[in-house]
Amino acid sequence: MSDARKRAVVLLSGGADSTTALAVATREGYATYALSFRYGQRHKHELECAARVARHFNVVEHVTFDVNIGAFGGSALTAEIDVPKNRAIADMERDIPVTYVPARNTVFLSIALSWAEVLGANDIFIGVNALDYSGYPDCRPEYIAAFKKMANLATKAGVEGQQTLRVHTPLIQLTKAQILLLGQSLGVPYGLTSSCYDPGELGEPCGHCDSCLLRLKGFSEAGLEDPLVYAPESEVV
Amino acid sequence: MSDARKRAVVLLSGGADSTTALAVATREGYATYALSFRYGQRHKHELECAARVARHFNVVEHVTFDVNIGAFGGSALTAEIDVPKNRAIADMERDIPVTYVPARNTVFLSIALSWAEVLGANDIFIGVNALDYSGYPDCRPEYIAAFKKMANLATKAGVEGQQTLRVHTPLIQLTKAQILLLGQSLGVPYGLTSSCYDPGELGEPCGHCDSCLLRLKGFSEAGLEDPLVYAPESEVV
Repeated sequence: MSDARKRAVVLLSGGADSTTALAVATREGYATYALSFRYGQRHKHELECAARVARHFNVVEHVTFDVNIGAFGGSALTAEIDVPKNRAIADMERDIPVTYVPARNTVFLSIALSWAEVLGANDIFIGVNALDYSGYPDCRPEYIAAFKKMANLATKAGVEGQQTLRVHTPLIQLTKAQILLLGQSLGVPYGLTSSCYDPGELGEPCGHCDSCLLRLKGFSEAGLEDPLVYAPESEVV
Repeated sequence: MSDARKRAVVLLSGGADSTTALAVATREGYATYALSFRYGQRHKHELECAARVARHFNVVEHVTFDVNIGAFGGSALTAEIDVPKNRAIADMERDIPVTYVPARNTVFLSIALSWAEVLGANDIFIGVNALDYSGYPDCRPEYIAAFKKMANLATKAGVEGQQTLRVHTPLIQLTKAQILLLGQSLGVPYGLTSSCYDPGELGEPCGHCDSCLLRLKGFSEAGLEDPLVYAPESEVV
């Protein structure tokens, strides 16, 4: 049975943002190919979430790709550096935190580009956002624009003078609250997602890392309830 | 013992070009960090060559990184597609051949960027060349320039407004003969290198794939002798 839909590769971490991006791609009618990464992250629970989310949205294929950039070190998400807790949101936006993984989005988008070219897909979706974010350089619009320009030169289409590859960032100008409201309107099951950088053994979110704090603030501002059950205070203090 | 030299990440396939690029980086006084990839290539012999070359040039560290983009398919170098043999050089330059691996250099440079940022290195060397090459889109100067621009936005340095990352392409405007003469002047042991896309079981080059033909033409035009022993005709026809 042939599938007449256009194909899109969607980066899917299993978090609230990438899941919302997948919901947008689905609504826009793409045949979706979800791509997750084992990159040496300590919070591997997100990969189980990604698998559940991919199933929920009926993706054509879900690949979990091994690319252990965590072995290079340099980040609290992959190395033995403590994940910061209970930071003020304003502090998150001021500095690049220790949870930054060097060149992570560039590596992820490059691998997505490779898969997209094989699939004949001209569309890549990534759930970066530049407002309620953690100050990562590779979430900014100017970075995404530069990646797209490079990608169009890197591939066969570029040689043939076509500018066919598009990088979709449907969340880039939204606040976390707006993202969650958008997702709610698209039926995103946020109870299947995981945003925590430092979850407990059963995957329960800590409630205190930058990612949990941004998520909780977003749900609060959106007037929605986060369906996740957070770790009890006694365990996380 | 501290090392006062500036650090550079050097992409090292184990072929003649990347080995010459490593020789250039070494001559320029960099502390070199060599990076090779298991990307699903059938010609894994090149990785043994890369290890020998890295030892020869006394690199600080040699990492062979797993990134199996070959699993996506789409190339004769990784999938069950025949490697073309005995093509005319002019044909190689006209079309993108089936040995093209989608977005390979982008994936490799992105992972190099990740390592470079962790190392505090501002310099990446890649042995691409745009003259005697196989028509790959990701070997062209405009592609490298776009990658560099993107990389400077992707990383911490970019956020801080610095344009510190450099991508060195010392071979990009050289013919294969010029590359080999440069390498000879730098003492490159070409007998340790492997360029073949379809080597025999013991690593002996076929002498008939695009890469072997370009190499042999280069040695011939340079008036040098290729120290490699090629597979006997009877085995390759």
